[in-house]
Amino acid sequence: MKAYMDMSRDELLAQKAALEEEFKTEEAKGLSLNMARGKPGASQLAISMPMLDAINSGSDMKTLLGNDTRNYGDWDGIGECRQLLADMMEVKKANVIVCGNSSLNIMYDTVVRSMVKGVNGSVPWCRLDKVKFLCPVPGYDRHFKITELFGIEMIPIPMGQDGPDMDLVEKYVSTDDAVKGIWCVPKYSNPTGITYSDEVVRRFARLKPKAEDFRIFWDNAYCIHHIYDDIHDNILNILEECEKAGNPNMVYIFASTSKISFPGSGVSAIATSLENMEYIRKFMTTQIIGHDKINQLRHARFFKNIDGLNAHMKKHADLLRPKFEAVLQVLDSELSGLGIGSWMKPRGGYFISFEAMPGCAKAIVEKCAKLGLVLTGAGATYPYGKDPQDSNIRIAPSFPTPEEMLEATKMFVLCVKIVSIEKILNK
Amino acid sequence: MKAYMDMSRDELLAQKAALEEEFKTEEAKGLSLNMARGKPGASQLAISMPMLDAINSGSDMKTLLGNDTRNYGDWDGIGECRQLLADMMEVKKANVIVCGNSSLNIMYDTVVRSMVKGVNGSVPWCRLDKVKFLCPVPGYDRHFKITELFGIEMIPIPMGQDGPDMDLVEKYVSTDDAVKGIWCVPKYSNPTGITYSDEVVRRFARLKPKAEDFRIFWDNAYCIHHIYDDIHDNILNILEECEKAGNPNMVYIFASTSKISFPGSGVSAIATSLENMEYIRKFMTTQIIGHDKINQLRHARFFKNIDGLNAHMKKHADLLRPKFEAVLQVLDSELSGLGIGSWMKPRGGYFISFEAMPGCAKAIVEKCAKLGLVLTGAGATYPYGKDPQDSNIRIAPSFPTPEEMLEATKMFVLCVKIVSIEKILNK
Repeated sequence: MKAYMDMSRDELLAQKAALEEEFKTEEAKGLSLNMARGKPGASQLAISMPMLDAINSGSDMKTLLGNDTRNYGDWDGIGECRQLLADMMEVKKANVIVCGNSSLNIMYDTVVRSMVKGVNGSVPWCRLDKVKFLCPVPGYDRHFKITELFGIEMIPIPMGQDGPDMDLVEKYVSTDDAVKGIWCVPKYSNPTGITYSDEVVRRFARLKPKAEDFRIFWDNAYCIHHIYDDIHDNILNILEECEKAGNPNMVYIFASTSKISFPGSGVSAIATSLENMEYIRKFMTTQIIGHDKINQLRHARFFKNIDGLNAHMKKHADLLRPKFEAVLQVLDSELSGLGIGSWMKPRGGYFISFEAMPGCAKAIVEKCAKLGLVLTGAGATYPYGKDPQDSNIRIAPSFPTPEEMLEATKMFVLCVKIVSIEKILNK
Repeated sequence: MKAYMDMSRDELLAQKAALEEEFKTEEAKGLSLNMARGKPGASQLAISMPMLDAINSGSDMKTLLGNDTRNYGDWDGIGECRQLLADMMEVKKANVIVCGNSSLNIMYDTVVRSMVKGVNGSVPWCRLDKVKFLCPVPGYDRHFKITELFGIEMIPIPMGQDGPDMDLVEKYVSTDDAVKGIWCVPKYSNPTGITYSDEVVRRFARLKPKAEDFRIFWDNAYCIHHIYDDIHDNILNILEECEKAGNPNMVYIFASTSKISFPGSGVSAIATSLENMEYIRKFMTTQIIGHDKINQLRHARFFKNIDGLNAHMKKHADLLRPKFEAVLQVLDSELSGLGIGSWMKPRGGYFISFEAMPGCAKAIVEKCAKLGLVLTGAGATYPYGKDPQDSNIRIAPSFPTPEEMLEATKMFVLCVKIVSIEKILNK
């Protein structure tokens, strides 16, 4: 393939004319496809349906310890569900609080609590002139929305192949006491799909924060969300590493079963040090008498243990893999060598991150919309929705079928090509 | 019966000696009964078990509007559940957001949001020197815990037979702009069981708050929680009354099915003006993608409509009534005329409020504990856990069986008698 940059103006114009013909044909199809969010597809929802039979009117509703899940109690979650999520998060049960249906909600609560009442007794962040969070980019838009809502200044940190730029992270954290947190998706990262290396995790654990109330928000959303059977990424246990490094309270780990059982009807958890848990307890027991323990029991009974969870995730992988492969196949065959974009080949998670030529992402997303193809808004993966390069596009292949993904990606590359040529021609 | 106050010292000593014999006999029984919290009893949990069959692996999981409850979406709740809870709360569906399993959590979130970001654009409460809440007393301890946690000053307002002392409420609200809220349980109040009169509701709606960000926290926890079939209390619709009075945004109404379906596994809701909802939306959609819609569907399918809800509540009433009657029968037969206590006869809700002689509540609760009878801590029904008269005791008859309640109340009156005599003797 000849790179577009190496083509003459006439060659580009000829290409463009042909592509625009193609575009008209596609436009006429009047397609409607949504690849905006990491929504599980219908086939994925189907494999969790048997879970709805795990509890019925004839069930014994008691936990292994004999507590009635139908009544108040067990504010930190029922034992068997704490164990299940501890195993999933690779931490000890004693460090886990199982909450409601949303780990995002736990993160929000954690930020809000720190705003109003501080962190384990520190000055409430709302009383400080300035609070800053480090935001590895591209990253998860919903993380950034939380910090934006509360007026926390967000500092973008570039992501590499093995995690965030740790030189930069260390510099900010050790010198600026306004830096109170960092958002991380350490495994099968949203959206780049990379997994933090052992060295990166260790550098996180060994941070020497200027602010005593600095915390790592470790959103392990895709901890067991592999795409392949044989290649699984692994990360070091950050909680243990922090302990070893003398920073036992520096990390909050979050996870949920939203993309294991049902989005919105799963269970979520936070794992952290006993000291942090004690502080959280004071707030959580004022906020709520207890979370939905029947749903916790439903999850514990259905999945049984970590082996059950992993077997279930294999089914998800089998359903997701063809979708990811459809996207990657079209990107490879249609864009390789053109020099107008690069992309990651993730081994897990929910996204494929596409880097277009600078200044093209918005235009590509808009052009796709004209074909009925809805992508995550360009810029969403950056704080304040502003991608300084206007180059990153997050592709979420989970919701459509593999056939639809194939079709959709063909349209996507068509738009990438047209917009890129226009960009080169207008230089 | 001769009132204790009218007895001679000798008569009292003789009584006391007899009662203490009785106490020893009871103590030897080694009973263990918990009347501390408004926990539904086992028989009540049983009647909701069929709800767990309302959704199973063969169910159509779509809402009436065709949305898949198993996936992300519908942040404000599924339509049929919003309608169900709107009918229960006697408001319009458009004014209802259905949330997770806990109305306490919505209240907490509402207070926290106001602390960090203000109310519909007002100055955040955390930036103010002083924030105050009015607290009708005796009241619900968990309300008071929320305001205490955030350093909000609580001002007790005496409760009468038809609601809080409205002269006092009006005075505070109209003259002090630090007064930002009031906690109310307007129907079958916790713990007194009284229901606010129409006049009280109208006076609430017509308040002229000095603070534009003053809000009424209207916790309609027991809206359909009648004890009798034929006598139902009613309250005026506060949302409508506020609209009429030109205060459309002044009230947040909270409710849940915690004591209808399952405590901790029900659904909760907030009802308020469209303008307030719009402000809440900004926060809630940052906090969470959506609440547990499968559980919402489960509730909507099981109860079907308000008639289904009411029929279900009749079953609860049939189970609760004998327990309340057991308590009232013993109180009436054992304490009438003794002048050492008074109590309410509620027509709904979960509690019987007992007023002991001043200075006796703590001692009574402690004495009951020696018999294995756990009551709500004395003082809990007052802000900061401090009952200035040390006289109020909240009796929660729902959890034990009627037979146990009879037994427990006998022990309770025994302790009331002994402590009261000691009080009189020591004067």
